[in-house]
Amino acid sequence: MGPGRLHALVDGVFAIAITLLVLDLPRPVDSAHLTHDLLHEWPTYVAYLVSFVTVGIVWIEHHGMMSAVREVNRRFLERTLLFLLFVSIIPWPTSIAAGYANHGSQARPAAILYATTMLLMGLSFSLSWHYLAEHPSLVAAPARAAFPAGFRRALVGGLVYLVAIAVALVSPPASFAIDALIALYFAASKSEVPGLIQRAARAEAPPPT
Amino acid sequence: MGPGRLHALVDGVFAIAITLLVLDLPRPVDSAHLTHDLLHEWPTYVAYLVSFVTVGIVWIEHHGMMSAVREVNRRFLERTLLFLLFVSIIPWPTSIAAGYANHGSQARPAAILYATTMLLMGLSFSLSWHYLAEHPSLVAAPARAAFPAGFRRALVGGLVYLVAIAVALVSPPASFAIDALIALYFAASKSEVPGLIQRAARAEAPPPT
Amino acid sequence: MGPGRLHALVDGVFAIAITLLVLDLPRPVDSAHLTHDLLHEWPTYVAYLVSFVTVGIVWIEHHGMMSAVREVNRRFLERTLLFLLFVSIIPWPTSIAAGYANHGSQARPAAILYATTMLLMGLSFSLSWHYLAEHPSLVAAPARAAFPAGFRRALVGGLVYLVAIAVALVSPPASFAIDALIALYFAASKSEVPGLIQRAARAEAPPPT
Amino acid sequence: MGPGRLHALVDGVFAIAITLLVLDLPRPVDSAHLTHDLLHEWPTYVAYLVSFVTVGIVWIEHHGMMSAVREVNRRFLERTLLFLLFVSIIPWPTSIAAGYANHGSQARPAAILYATTMLLMGLSFSLSWHYLAEHPSLVAAPARAAFPAGFRRALVGGLVYLVAIAVALVSPPASFAIDALIALYFAASKSEVPGLIQRAARAEAPPPT
Repeated sequence: MGPGRLHALVDGVFAIAITLLVLDLPRPVDSAHLTHDLLHEWPTYVAYLVSFVTVGIVWIEHHGMMSAVREVNRRFLERTLLFLLFVSIIPWPTSIAAGYANHGSQARPAAILYATTMLLMGLSFSLSWHYLAEHPSLVAAPARAAFPAGFRRALVGGLVYLVAIAVALVSPPASFAIDALIALYFAASKSEVPGLIQRAARAEAPPPT
Repeated sequence: MGPGRLHALVDGVFAIAITLLVLDLPRPVDSAHLTHDLLHEWPTYVAYLVSFVTVGIVWIEHHGMMSAVREVNRRFLERTLLFLLFVSIIPWPTSIAAGYANHGSQARPAAILYATTMLLMGLSFSLSWHYLAEHPSLVAAPARAAFPAGFRRALVGGLVYLVAIAVALVSPPASFAIDALIALYFAASKSEVPGLIQRAARAEAPPPT
Repeated sequence: MGPGRLHALVDGVFAIAITLLVLDLPRPVDSAHLTHDLLHEWPTYVAYLVSFVTVGIVWIEHHGMMSAVREVNRRFLERTLLFLLFVSIIPWPTSIAAGYANHGSQARPAAILYATTMLLMGLSFSLSWHYLAEHPSLVAAPARAAFPAGFRRALVGGLVYLVAIAVALVSPPASFAIDALIALYFAASKSEVPGLIQRAARAEAPPPT
Repeated sequence: MGPGRLHALVDGVFAIAITLLVLDLPRPVDSAHLTHDLLHEWPTYVAYLVSFVTVGIVWIEHHGMMSAVREVNRRFLERTLLFLLFVSIIPWPTSIAAGYANHGSQARPAAILYATTMLLMGLSFSLSWHYLAEHPSLVAAPARAAFPAGFRRALVGGLVYLVAIAVALVSPPASFAIDALIALYFAASKSEVPGLIQRAARAEAPPPT
């Protein structure tokens, strides 16, 4: 089976997850101090931005991985659905984090919930890399060598949220700061894996869209 | 008419149905016991997971079926829309089930509503299989032989929810457990139908995306 | 410009409009009479079904029309966006109709709003047909002859809602019944236009997806 | 990497942003004066229309730009995600503008928020044009010459919202009128850039969908 329709489902879920985040932005009703009321909700904007950037980076990385995939089977589809479960759920911990980041002792469970969701998204993403590394026949031949490194990169990108979970026990604000730093790190990172995969994929015929 | 645009509508509806489920996850406002309040809503998470897995499996099965479809006509489009009606509605019984699973005697109608929706989704899916089995010219030649078995599999996958409906009259929790078991069974099942279809489709030219 | 990306936007808007309808289905909170409370909302289900069937039929008709379109220009994109404006808005009059169909004298404006939206959707759809009939170079040669008839069909399909608007002044329930009958009529209708277009499109190379 | 999957994400986000606007249309509950209550909300409809037209025009312009793009890299994907951040957020300032346009002194921050979002969307769109103008190897050869002019057009289309922001300090209604006029101007404008790009793209092989 070609990967075409899987792209459509994945891109749909990412597009909707990104866009549903906006439903949680503050909409004060009949406010007499709109500017103040909107600025007061600054944790919501920060949470929105961190989630948007994280989901965006993960989409880019997934896009890079899939550009070398030439065939999918049922086991791979199941792993992708597990990954999409955690992508589609992200507006929920984002909403909780935005509502409780400034909420005294309740910031702790909010920070843990947020980082745990990201941990599970990262681990489920690394499962896809791992499956492709173990089943190279699904991947364009020149790109196969890059998949073990891609798996390690995704695994580290998930496990690093264990740090955010541990820090949340001591300082929820520091935990949220780590979530933001992880997004920025991956946005700026110069890993050779995506480049390797794309150059390899380009060496072949153009990938099926 | 090629099946390309039908894929786009189907994948869009599945992506949105999956993602709208998240809107019903609990978002307690100004809770002083966030962990407790979130854990208290455990039926919501179970309902979310069962619906996500069920929809995901059905998407995989639909994806497998469509990989052998080479042409669609208006009657097939209509059957697909009927199927999408029940897919798109799933966030609704899921929300009712989550809200009433722990709600004494009101769990019964909630369980019946949930299982009935799944029954209708399954039956409408089997209608698509049946139409293709009866109109083999729409299907890639080497895959045609698999469609009667695919129809039976989808029909059974729908009718089994009659058990969940009957059990709901006695024990709503047992009915929800059956819903979950059906999802797990199909996730794990080793039916030869999808494999047959995919191997057959692969024997031809690559399917139009 | 090829029509590929226009399909993606159109299918996305249809998929979301169909799926957002579900957000208005009744979700009673802590009801002690769930069955009664759900059954009491029967106008909501009827409104949901009528809108779903109407949008579904319109999608099939649009799909048929586009299967013969070989090129799009800016003016055609603008007409399509106008059409999508009315498609995307449908969950709104549906929600109003569901809420006020049983609401005494307030059913009248609800019925007028619903039928007017459908009128505008139909008229804007007929604008697309008209533009293609006037600019045959955008259409696959063998299908061009079918576009004037397609325009008339879409125009009648829109104008017939004028009857529903007029009837609403006398009897809102009768107006809603007309809305439902229009959907059923188009679902069952045997117009030769779509078949002509599809046969013509098939005579050419397979349409770009 | 081909641009195919980027189209899918972009079109998905546009389709959802357009459709989520509808969630903010007024749904009065148990109103005894439905017509009056609906008409009273006229700023909501104006805001809806202006946002719909603006997003629609931007989608057409983006569609025109992408029709000449033959390859995308990570830096371009990042710029596109920044652009999508502001597209996906539009239902939020639209909702605020609709709620506060008639709300005395609170109309000012609402008008500023709306125009600032549009400013940022325009600037982020011009960033994509700029990147392609600077990296012509990503663009179909015959269309490259049009990208500097496209960048200037997008830049002006963003910066003009600075006028709307400045005017909001004096008169919020005038600021909203400017927002509407900008949308109308771009809907009617006869820039040669899109035509140049499309003719150039057509001179080549058909663009990958």
